[in-house]
Amino acid sequence: MRQFVIVGHEVPTTPEISLDDLPGAGRLDVLCRCVNSAFFLSHDIREEVRVHLVLSDEYVIRFEGSELRHLRPDERSTGALIRGALDAREEAIGAMEANPSPGVYIGKGDFESTVEAAAADGTLVELHEDGDPVVDVEPPANPVFVLSDHHDFTDEEAELLSEHADERVSVGPHALHADHAITVANNYLDTDGFEYY
Amino acid sequence: MRQFVIVGHEVPTTPEISLDDLPGAGRLDVLCRCVNSAFFLSHDIREEVRVHLVLSDEYVIRFEGSELRHLRPDERSTGALIRGALDAREEAIGAMEANPSPGVYIGKGDFESTVEAAAADGTLVELHEDGDPVVDVEPPANPVFVLSDHHDFTDEEAELLSEHADERVSVGPHALHADHAITVANNYLDTDGFEYY
Repeated sequence: MRQFVIVGHEVPTTPEISLDDLPGAGRLDVLCRCVNSAFFLSHDIREEVRVHLVLSDEYVIRFEGSELRHLRPDERSTGALIRGALDAREEAIGAMEANPSPGVYIGKGDFESTVEAAAADGTLVELHEDGDPVVDVEPPANPVFVLSDHHDFTDEEAELLSEHADERVSVGPHALHADHAITVANNYLDTDGFEYY
Repeated sequence: MRQFVIVGHEVPTTPEISLDDLPGAGRLDVLCRCVNSAFFLSHDIREEVRVHLVLSDEYVIRFEGSELRHLRPDERSTGALIRGALDAREEAIGAMEANPSPGVYIGKGDFESTVEAAAADGTLVELHEDGDPVVDVEPPANPVFVLSDHHDFTDEEAELLSEHADERVSVGPHALHADHAITVANNYLDTDGFEYY
């Protein structure tokens, strides 16, 4: 299982989102592209992937690759899935998530609870420009990558992350958009430290 | 200079494109994501990149990283740039392109002329699942990557490509979307065969 946690700091937590202006919805376009990068292969979906979108530290939308239907690559349709999940947010009660669409879940949650649960469940890998070169790190069996939207992690988030991170890894000399970093991470795992050749 | 040639087999060649339905415009969403992957770094544009979008073998839109303005990461705004270029297509006369926006050019052209010009200008790298592992190939100084949209290359395109390709490279065990392949290719070049570490 590969997991990706992506933090949307300014995404609305109500479904009043215009699909004509995803950047205006707290840069929801960034999160849509992250979902695309995490799941899509050519003519296939990565079934062994789970994505958690942390929305403004209030709700978490979880995508399960093994159950997903209706996910298409374009930003607008992914935005519509997210809007549909927000529309069902009040059906989530306590620890029980709502499940508005196959493979899409929404529940109350924040960065701390999401990172702690994911870290208990796998090896937390922090992508960081000062980390170890990705090619020198043996890919863990159940990696959890934590990424931020167009903003850096807040100091509190960065601290929590460092506390729980098992590995700190660099994917190259340039800072990348979150969705591009996910693509590179997937490729790194696909090639298993390039031992597949 | 890094160049990416992306073929859109079914993209309209007139500006009658609905920004609310980029997939419906011959999967223009795919080309928009390719432009994003080719150019964006976190808070920066890759100035040494050139992209050629071959539209239905009739027009070619060229993006120059060193001149680009008004490019934003979301699909819709890139779709608007492409629609704006198509709107100016009749200003292109003979070999003279129109230049409707900084760094965006449109001219008459097809797959063959684009690949031949690009191959004369750099090292043509074919991304192919049966190619040599990317890590075993010394990155060329001026690579030209040629990719197809959601369709495979036609037999004629594939033949032309094989004829002109200097290298045939595989980026991993799975077939990827074109935009993801561009991200992996950029990362491969960024890390220069991973010698940057």
